[in-house]
Amino acid sequence: MTCEIISIGNELLIGKVVNTNASWLAERLTRLGVAVKRITVVGDNLSEISSCIRESLSRKPRYIITTGGLGPTYDDITLEGLAVALGKPLVLNQEALEMVRGKYEKMGEELTESRIKMAKMPEGAEPLPNPVGTAPAAKIVSGGTLIYALPGVPREMEAIFNETISRDVSGESGLKVAELYLRVTGVKESSLAPLISRVKELYPNTYIKSHPKVSEEKPWIEIYFSVFHKDESEAKRIVSEAAKELTRLIEEHYGKVVSNRGMNKGFWKGIVE
Amino acid sequence: MTCEIISIGNELLIGKVVNTNASWLAERLTRLGVAVKRITVVGDNLSEISSCIRESLSRKPRYIITTGGLGPTYDDITLEGLAVALGKPLVLNQEALEMVRGKYEKMGEELTESRIKMAKMPEGAEPLPNPVGTAPAAKIVSGGTLIYALPGVPREMEAIFNETISRDVSGESGLKVAELYLRVTGVKESSLAPLISRVKELYPNTYIKSHPKVSEEKPWIEIYFSVFHKDESEAKRIVSEAAKELTRLIEEHYGKVVSNRGMNKGFWKGIVE
Repeated sequence: MTCEIISIGNELLIGKVVNTNASWLAERLTRLGVAVKRITVVGDNLSEISSCIRESLSRKPRYIITTGGLGPTYDDITLEGLAVALGKPLVLNQEALEMVRGKYEKMGEELTESRIKMAKMPEGAEPLPNPVGTAPAAKIVSGGTLIYALPGVPREMEAIFNETISRDVSGESGLKVAELYLRVTGVKESSLAPLISRVKELYPNTYIKSHPKVSEEKPWIEIYFSVFHKDESEAKRIVSEAAKELTRLIEEHYGKVVSNRGMNKGFWKGIVE
Repeated sequence: MTCEIISIGNELLIGKVVNTNASWLAERLTRLGVAVKRITVVGDNLSEISSCIRESLSRKPRYIITTGGLGPTYDDITLEGLAVALGKPLVLNQEALEMVRGKYEKMGEELTESRIKMAKMPEGAEPLPNPVGTAPAAKIVSGGTLIYALPGVPREMEAIFNETISRDVSGESGLKVAELYLRVTGVKESSLAPLISRVKELYPNTYIKSHPKVSEEKPWIEIYFSVFHKDESEAKRIVSEAAKELTRLIEEHYGKVVSNRGMNKGFWKGIVE
């Protein structure tokens, strides 16, 4: 099960906003057993958006999630870009219009042209309610890909993901992830590299990645391990064995492994419940 | 002058690391007059890296900047991916090898296979010194595109950008950017949309974007304006006029504009010196 994330907004391309939406989504999807293969950021430009979605569809991920560009302003054109990419007309979605109307009625506000625009979606799209904002999200199926268009405001994006997408994804995935971290001091990353390669050969389904870190001017290496498996206890067993093997190798060569979480208690982090 | 940023690393695709490198680069490039058109994140996977670079080259940006994957471990394969994308062999670069050798000699360390790997670059690449780390960066020209491969460790990436790329870019660009922000309270974003559209028509070279914000539970809208121009005072004049026109329109309709920076003093932010 694979996913691509497409983040839309000029503010991301000028460095005004850091793309925390993509990392939030990537972390949530990973824990649900989905492999995020690519994250793409494009500006508020119709041909950029539509060609980016078309390229993504050609790689046939199970999911595409877009963020941004659902609001009322002239440059909020994600749904138009999606319609172009899919070769479908952009139509006024009655269900979405009722969602928008309801929001503004509650606030005692009129339904202006800019607000009605938020209910224009590619033909065949299913509007998804936005529990904390005014712009509905949208879901549309294209071939074997489910496309979700979410707002760019983080709390709206997160709320819609939690209420809609995470349920869809959990229903499809049966995978659990087991992850852990080792902390190594006094050894250089380049010295660890051949040892990591050996563990990687012994445990080919274990993902292992080292990250050089500095805290309070003292360098250390964080080594991240993860395994996906249908059976959660099996995932934990494999990841634990791989980490123990690397610990053994490092101690054999350098005698210096520090784990910032004890190998027994509190060693696990982020196991999917 | 356009640029694409390609961020390489599984840690970005699992949401473990937020892509601050891309936003840092995007901000710096924007201030140097370069339009960042796309940011792509791919994992530590040879075919993903090489196809992503090839796709980017086909869009003919002036610059491609990659970050990550230059280190000593088995999954640091950016330069191999770059070689595949360019159809060039990966060769041991003697100048890069001397850079790596010098670093480890100073530390009294041997030149292992994993360390030598950091000096293997696509044929024709120019190694760029890394003032704060061990892995050299690389620059290579392909058609009309300059490709820079930078490390993923932020302080190394920033140092190499500051010492090498920013000089290259400044030499090519003559553009200055003028930017400013307006802060509007008591008016909804969807009510501002038609007014922004009118100003956008009057000042077609001005980029205008509204961002809904909440601080201390009070909602407000930030409106960002920017203009690029060879002549800095002309850029300032245009952006200021556009902001004044929008202020006038909002006050005409709603009587409620708050600027968090006075229109005269301290109104400007981020002018390129």
